[in-house]
Amino acid sequence: MKIEKVAIIGLGLLGGSIGLAVKQHASEIVTTGFDHDASVRDTARERGLVDTVCNSAAEAVREADLVIFCVPMGALGDAACSISQSAQPHAVISDVGSAKQGVAEALAKALPNHTIIPAHPVAGTEQSGPDAGFANLFTNRWCILTPPADANEAAVKALSDFWRGLGARIEIMDPEHHDLVLAVTSHIPHLIAFTIVGTASDLEDVTRGEVIKYSAGGFRDFTRIAASDPVMWRDVFLSNKSAVLEMLGRFTEDLTALQRAIRSGDGEKLHDLFSRTRAIRRSIIEQGQDDERPDFGREDHL
Amino acid sequence: MKIEKVAIIGLGLLGGSIGLAVKQHASEIVTTGFDHDASVRDTARERGLVDTVCNSAAEAVREADLVIFCVPMGALGDAACSISQSAQPHAVISDVGSAKQGVAEALAKALPNHTIIPAHPVAGTEQSGPDAGFANLFTNRWCILTPPADANEAAVKALSDFWRGLGARIEIMDPEHHDLVLAVTSHIPHLIAFTIVGTASDLEDVTRGEVIKYSAGGFRDFTRIAASDPVMWRDVFLSNKSAVLEMLGRFTEDLTALQRAIRSGDGEKLHDLFSRTRAIRRSIIEQGQDDERPDFGREDHL
Repeated sequence: MKIEKVAIIGLGLLGGSIGLAVKQHASEIVTTGFDHDASVRDTARERGLVDTVCNSAAEAVREADLVIFCVPMGALGDAACSISQSAQPHAVISDVGSAKQGVAEALAKALPNHTIIPAHPVAGTEQSGPDAGFANLFTNRWCILTPPADANEAAVKALSDFWRGLGARIEIMDPEHHDLVLAVTSHIPHLIAFTIVGTASDLEDVTRGEVIKYSAGGFRDFTRIAASDPVMWRDVFLSNKSAVLEMLGRFTEDLTALQRAIRSGDGEKLHDLFSRTRAIRRSIIEQGQDDERPDFGREDHL
Repeated sequence: MKIEKVAIIGLGLLGGSIGLAVKQHASEIVTTGFDHDASVRDTARERGLVDTVCNSAAEAVREADLVIFCVPMGALGDAACSISQSAQPHAVISDVGSAKQGVAEALAKALPNHTIIPAHPVAGTEQSGPDAGFANLFTNRWCILTPPADANEAAVKALSDFWRGLGARIEIMDPEHHDLVLAVTSHIPHLIAFTIVGTASDLEDVTRGEVIKYSAGGFRDFTRIAASDPVMWRDVFLSNKSAVLEMLGRFTEDLTALQRAIRSGDGEKLHDLFSRTRAIRRSIIEQGQDDERPDFGREDHL
């Protein structure tokens, strides 16, 4: 089984980047695409995000071996229903959603006779929309596949090969574990960032102008994440509720312990934690998952 | 009053960067420096962080018009005592500490007869030590001066001119307000980052290897801040306890409200907050306080 034709439903940051990555890294594959927003389709045509921008999802998927939904998770069920009559019987159905348990259910309900292999490329930026995508978004990033236990092995291999072709590394995981891992590496960091940016915006005794002026003290890092797509992130928290609440509980416990250490002046406890956290950054850099330049290399650009 | 000779006590990231910035942007000023760590002094000599590296703080300050302490805040009192016999009577005494109320007291106690103008350049990276400094660290960053109410105006102007000469912008603030503003723009973001990185390191059901592999989902941003100097940050939290606890209380309230929204599936509340937080990032970029490239421009380097 080899993927020769791919339909991309949803042409924002992720969908557009997949299209551009195929063009640059796997140009033998033919791409079609659709977005429910006509202005997004216009931009997709101008930028050449896919070979053919279609005027319906049904039309886009008609000849595809692989259909990838790149829509907010809350829109996934409806999007999947819209192709149920026109997708080829052999087509593999996949997605890029950030939580995987709900996705598998929504896709299976809409397309009960298809091979469904949910996927999550752990990549993105704070920007969204059809202008935001670029061909190297997935280079050296991990793409996690969460096939059902009885999944067709050839389909899993074909989807893995497709993502490898775009530069990604592949991991197979069960959806429950995926959702727990991503709760801590992605969802809680975003929730915290949204929260502190909201807190800082609402203060009375510190003005918003002051928050902006002195943001180089650390706050500005959080504003990048908190500028991420609101609809996508609303759906992440609604879709991954239990793992997020579980991890949030652990974070809050740890924060309360630090709060107590500050209140009681326990410098040793603070120093102990602050010393431990350096090591994990070194590992992330060693494994090619972040930029080693100090301050993300900002001084070269500001 | 014009500053012609500057003594820098403590030659880590901040002290070293001041020395290099003087050399590059204000080369008419003569610099001396001292660090209590002999290996730091050796590196400072090799890198030429200051014109003359001295073997004691007393020797370094002997001819200085301006003495800047660049040591962790917990070490400030002792460092100031060590120059009380040798600093010139007219020398202005300043520092770079991240919390200002405690600093003013510690300096005034050690040097009761000197003009003390505490300062805080809101700039830094996650790296520390004498290898970490660079000449443009302060370019376009804010330096906040917190002079006492009865401060010598000529001294405040001289210190402002000095920092402007290194590329910084100047703001005058009272120390209480400074400590509140920085609690929200710097100290709480660091505390949260240290906490979540600690939480993620200690999980049993998600391995450290998984946390590292999938850190591109957002977590890696927090590890940069959480790689900051442990001694410096311990002292920040011990020095700015009341403002940090106050702001932490507000953050926790807001986080609890979001937790409730997630638990009850209140998508509208989540979407409302996530939409508001984008605006503040735009302002930060417009005011030159952060890099506008998506994902801090990482895709160019990874």
